[in-house]
Amino acid sequence: MHDIRLMIPGPTPVPDEVLREMARPMINHRSPMFSAILADCRKGAQWLYRTSHDVIFMTASGTGGLEAALVNVLSPGDRVLSLVSGVFGKRFADMAQVFGAEVHRVETRAGEAYDPARVAEALEAGPFKAVLMTHNETSTAVLNPIEQVAAMVRARWPEALILVDAVSGLGSAPLETDAWGLDVVVSGSQKAFSVPPGLAMLAVSPRAWQAVGEARCPRFYFDLGKARDFDAKGQTPWTPAISVFYALAKALERMQAEGLEGILGRHLELTTGLRSGLRALGMELLVKDEAAASRAVTAVFPPAGVAPSDFRKRMQAQYGIVLAGGQGALTDSIFRVGHLGHCSRVDILGCLAALESVLVELGAPVEPGRGVAGAQLAWQQPRPAAVGA
Amino acid sequence: MHDIRLMIPGPTPVPDEVLREMARPMINHRSPMFSAILADCRKGAQWLYRTSHDVIFMTASGTGGLEAALVNVLSPGDRVLSLVSGVFGKRFADMAQVFGAEVHRVETRAGEAYDPARVAEALEAGPFKAVLMTHNETSTAVLNPIEQVAAMVRARWPEALILVDAVSGLGSAPLETDAWGLDVVVSGSQKAFSVPPGLAMLAVSPRAWQAVGEARCPRFYFDLGKARDFDAKGQTPWTPAISVFYALAKALERMQAEGLEGILGRHLELTTGLRSGLRALGMELLVKDEAAASRAVTAVFPPAGVAPSDFRKRMQAQYGIVLAGGQGALTDSIFRVGHLGHCSRVDILGCLAALESVLVELGAPVEPGRGVAGAQLAWQQPRPAAVGA
Repeated sequence: MHDIRLMIPGPTPVPDEVLREMARPMINHRSPMFSAILADCRKGAQWLYRTSHDVIFMTASGTGGLEAALVNVLSPGDRVLSLVSGVFGKRFADMAQVFGAEVHRVETRAGEAYDPARVAEALEAGPFKAVLMTHNETSTAVLNPIEQVAAMVRARWPEALILVDAVSGLGSAPLETDAWGLDVVVSGSQKAFSVPPGLAMLAVSPRAWQAVGEARCPRFYFDLGKARDFDAKGQTPWTPAISVFYALAKALERMQAEGLEGILGRHLELTTGLRSGLRALGMELLVKDEAAASRAVTAVFPPAGVAPSDFRKRMQAQYGIVLAGGQGALTDSIFRVGHLGHCSRVDILGCLAALESVLVELGAPVEPGRGVAGAQLAWQQPRPAAVGA
Repeated sequence: MHDIRLMIPGPTPVPDEVLREMARPMINHRSPMFSAILADCRKGAQWLYRTSHDVIFMTASGTGGLEAALVNVLSPGDRVLSLVSGVFGKRFADMAQVFGAEVHRVETRAGEAYDPARVAEALEAGPFKAVLMTHNETSTAVLNPIEQVAAMVRARWPEALILVDAVSGLGSAPLETDAWGLDVVVSGSQKAFSVPPGLAMLAVSPRAWQAVGEARCPRFYFDLGKARDFDAKGQTPWTPAISVFYALAKALERMQAEGLEGILGRHLELTTGLRSGLRALGMELLVKDEAAASRAVTAVFPPAGVAPSDFRKRMQAQYGIVLAGGQGALTDSIFRVGHLGHCSRVDILGCLAALESVLVELGAPVEPGRGVAGAQLAWQQPRPAAVGA
């Protein structure tokens, strides 16, 4: 029996200090005590989001946050451009469609990031009320060039709203809400924050607030206008997941102590080490382009003859390491290693070593130690000066 | 500095044993480990709901659960009858209207329960796609006669769906989901379960499932169809509030050990003791009719000259007892004492004693000890044979 080590792209492992916050007694959510915690969380989130915009919290998963982003700024019939690079981009587009938008999609091949040329072409079919994009596409382990694509949108259609699914991206890869001109940016507590699931958060630009006033999609639980009214008095409209707020406040305190450069540098380092180790073992990665490699999760094809589900089962049974499977069309062909939030070099080394063992056991042509050595060698290279995407 | 004793109608105090569950490490929500917990919670909830229907969990507040109840069975233009006895009944009706229903309202005066004669009259304006009712109206501390009203609805319009807000009622007062023919019954983790907020739950009858297939209100996060598909494989469609599930499983284990009769008997006893104590002090209760008295919360007019907000401030500053204010039109005229979930006789006695002291300090004509004695005397009466509403 092993302790479990979660290496999935959320929920992430939660540090003990943060877990203990979850066990604090309840307080009145209509009290100054709660208002103080909410204010801390807002301030911390603004720091991570690199924004001076409002950050609104909702008791929901990231998907709930994405729904809130859509129903508060769209009206049925609005034209929307959706950039899709995997399951989560598709989900975001599907949601917009469910709520009555006319959705135009630009889809990339699995493992590829948005192609600016194709986006430019698609933008010509505008105007669009909103452009939907995914910062980190968890299903294919792709990091998309949000800065570049957002600039193209803004140049072509200055009025279009830029809605970003940064659920797994925020805090793992650079994201500049204000500097990049992003209008609604959604994240979730169980991702880079390393907090248990239960809270979604949305940064909302003045341009987006303007749209909230005009949007006609019906909404109640996710109504941003109500949320803003209550936020002004330090409350949420409905009873919030108080325990998750406790944990989030502590996690943000820890993140600020580590520093943004430290956090982003660590995620880049873990990504580079893992990818180098896997390549040293001769394994194929779904994302070939280094610049498009997610900093939160890595998607891997196991060697020929090894079924991903069998491999994952053995990793958990023998080493307690929990990996993720593929999603959608990739379900039976890849596995995914999460390295998001509370994750360190030693987790990557341990994962590579365990993976070597299990692959040898399964008869794959893998030389023990090569993966671990590959990661170490990568880390001995001089670290890049900037950690930008 | 006092420890805080929450006596608000949710969030309720959480027992230590349940709080500790909140601090357990994360697991993969797409794993048999999570499925086992979900199954325990479903089974426990079915026991409390007195139902063999599906019980579906959603990461949201009770309001989110109510939205799910509406958007999954209604289509824009559907005619709905809303029985309103306070803020929460009004909210339920408002939500139906936001999502396009044609809402007919029957409103009672503050502190009064549904009047069956007026409901009968209103039903004549049918048919209705659904009838919306509130089991325990938290804002006015009223327990509504759901059994009687549901039977009237079923007799007059056999096809109508009966949607019940039992967020604060389930587990505090009798509710028979199956025997009373209720179609969707909504509750929330932070009420009688005495678990932190974060989960809503819905019991869904076969008649309601039929409606889910036909309803045309747009929905995604709250889509019951998707929830049922995932439920069949022991999962939720979106990342759930895992920690709250841990706590809920433990809370339901404790509730089953206490037994339903024990739980309901205790709530009735606390209600009777508190009301008798307050009356012995000469205080006026908002709900005059004993049969309509909420088993979860009691609404009280303070003596003339005492401002509810000042009184509540002193109760917290001097005794750590946190009471609730009034809501809506009652904000400045009443205070409310919660006695929901993890609450005992000694909490009621302590609250009455502290209240006597504070009122004396405020110059109210109150005789110390009378309130406490009133509760004790009430408890010396033979306990009613049945705990039915």
